Amino acid sequence: MAVKAKKRQPSPVVEKIVSEAANVHDKIRRRGKPQMKLPIRSLANVKYRPAAGHFQLLGKNKVRTLTVNTVKTFAQTLKMLAMSKDLVETERHSTKREAYYQAYNWGEAAFAGQDESDTVMDDVEAMLAVNREQMHFRADEHGGEVAGELIVIDKDRRTKKPVEIDCTAFGSGAYSIPTVVEDLKFKTTAKFILAVETKGMFERLVEEDFYDKQHCILVSMGGVPSRACRRFIRRLADEKKLPVYVFTDGDPYGYFNIYRTLKVGSGNAAHLNEYFCVPQARFLGVTPDDIHTYKLPTHALKDVDIKRAKDAMANDPFIRHYKVWQKAIEKMLKMGVRVEQQALAKHGLEYVATKYLPEKLKQVNSFLP
Amino acid sequence: MAVKAKKRQPSPVVEKIVSEAANVHDKIRRRGKPQMKLPIRSLANVKYRPAAGHFQLLGKNKVRTLTVNTVKTFAQTLKMLAMSKDLVETERHSTKREAYYQAYNWGEAAFAGQDESDTVMDDVEAMLAVNREQMHFRADEHGGEVAGELIVIDKDRRTKKPVEIDCTAFGSGAYSIPTVVEDLKFKTTAKFILAVETKGMFERLVEEDFYDKQHCILVSMGGVPSRACRRFIRRLADEKKLPVYVFTDGDPYGYFNIYRTLKVGSGNAAHLNEYFCVPQARFLGVTPDDIHTYKLPTHALKDVDIKRAKDAMANDPFIRHYKVWQKAIEKMLKMGVRVEQQALAKHGLEYVATKYLPEKLKQVNSFLP
Repeated sequence: MAVKAKKRQPSPVVEKIVSEAANVHDKIRRRGKPQMKLPIRSLANVKYRPAAGHFQLLGKNKVRTLTVNTVKTFAQTLKMLAMSKDLVETERHSTKREAYYQAYNWGEAAFAGQDESDTVMDDVEAMLAVNREQMHFRADEHGGEVAGELIVIDKDRRTKKPVEIDCTAFGSGAYSIPTVVEDLKFKTTAKFILAVETKGMFERLVEEDFYDKQHCILVSMGGVPSRACRRFIRRLADEKKLPVYVFTDGDPYGYFNIYRTLKVGSGNAAHLNEYFCVPQARFLGVTPDDIHTYKLPTHALKDVDIKRAKDAMANDPFIRHYKVWQKAIEKMLKMGVRVEQQALAKHGLEYVATKYLPEKLKQVNSFLP
Repeated sequence: MAVKAKKRQPSPVVEKIVSEAANVHDKIRRRGKPQMKLPIRSLANVKYRPAAGHFQLLGKNKVRTLTVNTVKTFAQTLKMLAMSKDLVETERHSTKREAYYQAYNWGEAAFAGQDESDTVMDDVEAMLAVNREQMHFRADEHGGEVAGELIVIDKDRRTKKPVEIDCTAFGSGAYSIPTVVEDLKFKTTAKFILAVETKGMFERLVEEDFYDKQHCILVSMGGVPSRACRRFIRRLADEKKLPVYVFTDGDPYGYFNIYRTLKVGSGNAAHLNEYFCVPQARFLGVTPDDIHTYKLPTHALKDVDIKRAKDAMANDPFIRHYKVWQKAIEKMLKMGVRVEQQALAKHGLEYVATKYLPEKLKQVNSFLP
């Protein structure tokens, strides 16, 4: 890869990569069959650990030994490790897609397709027990937006000096979260983080000066939160000891796909939840109870809503762990309706900021876990 | 609606609304049947005007007269006009969804569903010949991201004083474009705007210091550009007399859904293209020719690609207007392959920033129109 930038402190990721490679190298020098140990990435190897607050691997491993059959994957895994080392040392990041194309130069080890390279990347990620972003691979997706009482400290790419980004200084705009947030630092006097489902509601709250009045940090998730968005909220909440409140539509998509993914992570990426879950998240609303309390207009549940809710009741370890969530879902199914956050506009555009949220925030202990 | 903010200069939109309402009122006082005139919004009423650089309405109108059958729509149209006037005067904005819920209080004029309220909003928009955002209605969608040699001048919501947003000061992050950009002002020394399809490529170019080296403004469209993103690029390019270059995947989706929508707008929203098209846009790449010139890895065209390309050749007034575009599409179909922007990573991550784009930018006259 290109001109190397000034090297940073030896990174823990690089150290892990070097030791993995050393093991393989030694084994070969001693004429043995080199091996790599990878945790099995499947729901069968996953458990919900309330204490840790997220899905965790049960520790089953698969061992990949160098044989005629595994030689290509084995080579790809080593090449992927080398690429990561190079990225960290050159202070560059690569999307999964870019990594896939760079591998075109791997000769016989080149990937047949991107699913193949994705699998190897997931393996490497799990093997090192780090997240992809720490290996300087990034997802090609939006990271969500931020406005409120927060100063993000990043590094100026040219001067390499710290740059302070004041999230109250963007007028009607916002700070767009980068796909890799591992090295960001924070300054804040905010009392809590409010993660919002839609950009429309985010801009509503910005327009109503909500973060000034409530001293908070607003994050627009834009639907299901991306890895970067989840990791950003997690790191910010951990470092600044901030509670995280989540405000979505009152439907199964909002409850499970958005809130639950943010809070405990997703089953098929259990080896990552340690980094991407937000255990301190609590569900503010919109709850089925709110429909009565605030006389909100509703829509009938779609079949997909009902199916999603019933699946969650039956199979989702998180929902099955919390009686209060089961009660809420049962109530929703009984009422047969869903409700959108923007339904609060029936009482006036400012109502959500002047009445609904302030009332809710007086009773955070009643938020769903 | 809530406490009124200090009123601004009488807005042209409010003036139009008031005069529309006055006409209706006078007609009624003179015991006549009030009428509203609306341009017909369909491809049948659309033509591509190369001079203007976008689709334009042919001027066919429908007249809505107050009768027993039209009374509900008539009332809804007037209520929608009143809501817009209120929004402008209170310096608030409302999403279409919020508008729909506010209309729950319109008694018999309440909307049966959102499609009904969307239609009325489109009518009102066309009737006043303004865009929805000027009426203070906004779309609930991301607006794209910006990094580079640009200072955006917005208004601080609290002090109402101008706030300057330096798009070089976001570190690895970016400025997130708000959904309404009508009142933004700009300062820049940049030579051009580069609109990029994916966030991954946007961050690549930020990471490579591309905007410093080329003195440009980078915009991440995040797929098909949203209204806000298109309007932002248009206003910026107009006011600062900047050329706009577009960098997408080399496939029909990139050519038509992204580039063509950005440049000339979309047929079914012809009454808006005046505001949302970017006539100065030129297509930088990735072109079918680039595949040979830069020895890029490709993928076979999918059926949907082929169908989309053939439809465009047959029916798209824009493509039909430009021989060079037809040649490019024919070449793509002949080769039977598509190419992604990230395929350039085969030659190294920095290649796109140090070789491909700089070489392309030396021959802007050869860009596709």
